[in-house]
Amino acid sequence: MNDRAAPIERLVLIGVGLIGGSLARALKNAGAVEKVIGVARSRRTGDRASALGVIDGFSTSARDAVEGASVVVIATPVATFPVILDAISESLSENTVVTDVGSVKRFVVDAARKHLRKHFVRFVPGHPIAGTEQSGVDASFPELYRHRRVILTPLPETADTATQLIENMWKITGAQVLRMDVDHHDRVLAATSHLPHVVAYALVQYLANHPERETLFQLAAGGFYDFTRIASSDPVMWRDICVTNSEEIVAALRGFRSRLNEMIQAIETRNGGTLEECFKHAKQARETGLRSKNRKPKTV
Amino acid sequence: MNDRAAPIERLVLIGVGLIGGSLARALKNAGAVEKVIGVARSRRTGDRASALGVIDGFSTSARDAVEGASVVVIATPVATFPVILDAISESLSENTVVTDVGSVKRFVVDAARKHLRKHFVRFVPGHPIAGTEQSGVDASFPELYRHRRVILTPLPETADTATQLIENMWKITGAQVLRMDVDHHDRVLAATSHLPHVVAYALVQYLANHPERETLFQLAAGGFYDFTRIASSDPVMWRDICVTNSEEIVAALRGFRSRLNEMIQAIETRNGGTLEECFKHAKQARETGLRSKNRKPKTV
Repeated sequence: MNDRAAPIERLVLIGVGLIGGSLARALKNAGAVEKVIGVARSRRTGDRASALGVIDGFSTSARDAVEGASVVVIATPVATFPVILDAISESLSENTVVTDVGSVKRFVVDAARKHLRKHFVRFVPGHPIAGTEQSGVDASFPELYRHRRVILTPLPETADTATQLIENMWKITGAQVLRMDVDHHDRVLAATSHLPHVVAYALVQYLANHPERETLFQLAAGGFYDFTRIASSDPVMWRDICVTNSEEIVAALRGFRSRLNEMIQAIETRNGGTLEECFKHAKQARETGLRSKNRKPKTV
Repeated sequence: MNDRAAPIERLVLIGVGLIGGSLARALKNAGAVEKVIGVARSRRTGDRASALGVIDGFSTSARDAVEGASVVVIATPVATFPVILDAISESLSENTVVTDVGSVKRFVVDAARKHLRKHFVRFVPGHPIAGTEQSGVDASFPELYRHRRVILTPLPETADTATQLIENMWKITGAQVLRMDVDHHDRVLAATSHLPHVVAYALVQYLANHPERETLFQLAAGGFYDFTRIASSDPVMWRDICVTNSEEIVAALRGFRSRLNEMIQAIETRNGGTLEECFKHAKQARETGLRSKNRKPKTV
């Protein structure tokens, strides 16, 4: 299979928000899908997504919608996955490939193994590292995945044809696809994505509970609002990520807190030498990282 | 005095970097200054600033440069202030107004009172809340202060004519000028600016010292790089801010750490309800703050 593969006949998108909607738009623009059926909890969302041309029809029942699907993409907050996987399991055909876009993978893989049973061999765990602080189908756009990375974490038992199909689907959106081990994914993402989100939420919480909160928010510079942009992300999605990747996130938070404590100590003792060293090191590491990010990553 | 006041005859800019350079450019563009003399430690910086047209001449001696100055602006990292203030004190005339752009004000005011002695009545402590993660005169641009806030913290003994002159100078750059009490400034800025910078530095330090640092920096999403943009700020400037506003920054860091500990606790116990509540509250507070920021602030 390559980029010129036949279009996906019937793509069922469970969850029609920023992530799912952008995928559908990208595939449609590329002519890589014939029909997209959305699954939305509310008719309002379904009607809106249809009106925007993101989907060609919708159902409020995941079980009904997946009948006859070529590919099913689950794009809802991860805590909903067990119920959804259980619901669709009975209606899947022997050919349907199921994937997801969840930000955590161990929880998702365990739920898929349990609920999909015989269909688990055609489940390809996926995670596009893309998004904005917006959510909902109105925020979706076809270029969201261009030059972004998508991580797939297939298991030893995952059918290679299924993984290839999903890899090809993401490449069509302009993304670069990587494969990683499930637990490695969760450990790495805890540090690079989940940790910064929790830190941003805690920072805004600190200001929001400050006795002078009004003055603080008014005088905060642009840097503060940039810094905390990610604290405007969807609270339900982030609740689910924290609950389902709890151990790795707590480990990252503790590691970060140790660094913070070192800085508090250095500031308290007015240790200018240590502070300058720390700040220089951080500045340099960030800038080196930013350059390496634009190079092709090694196999991870 | 109003916006149509006569141009400043001789402005002496001690420290020709992003902040000072942008001020000079804005005043020159507005025809609000006749001559700008820079003070730079190195001839290279002075030559570069002259070549860019930011200054009309320079000296490596602050003491010599301030002779005959109408206005002196100190725009170097704050730890250098005591030496600079001491050096210029003897050469100041009875008409020269001195101001600064330091991010902390108590340390600066105490140093100015001590070293400027009889000239202290014409010292107007100032702080433009503007900047980028860039530094140096090459990064300077005349619009840096447009629609940004500048805080002045005049003392009871500060001559009102001096404060008016500096207020007018900043208004010409397009900034909105506020007046605040010295210690109130340091407390508020510790929370809104100094805290986020230290947190960003600590976050990057955590990743930079992680055993998988290469993978982490490569897989970090755009959000991470946006979030930590401020960790690319000038390490010496931030060392000085931390050392000279130590108490307020430590207090803010401790307050933030308490919020962080609450989140760690909630994530560890997989308390989804508390997490969702926290995240919703933070998202809402940030968005309300962003709206209020675009309104005229109350007197603070």
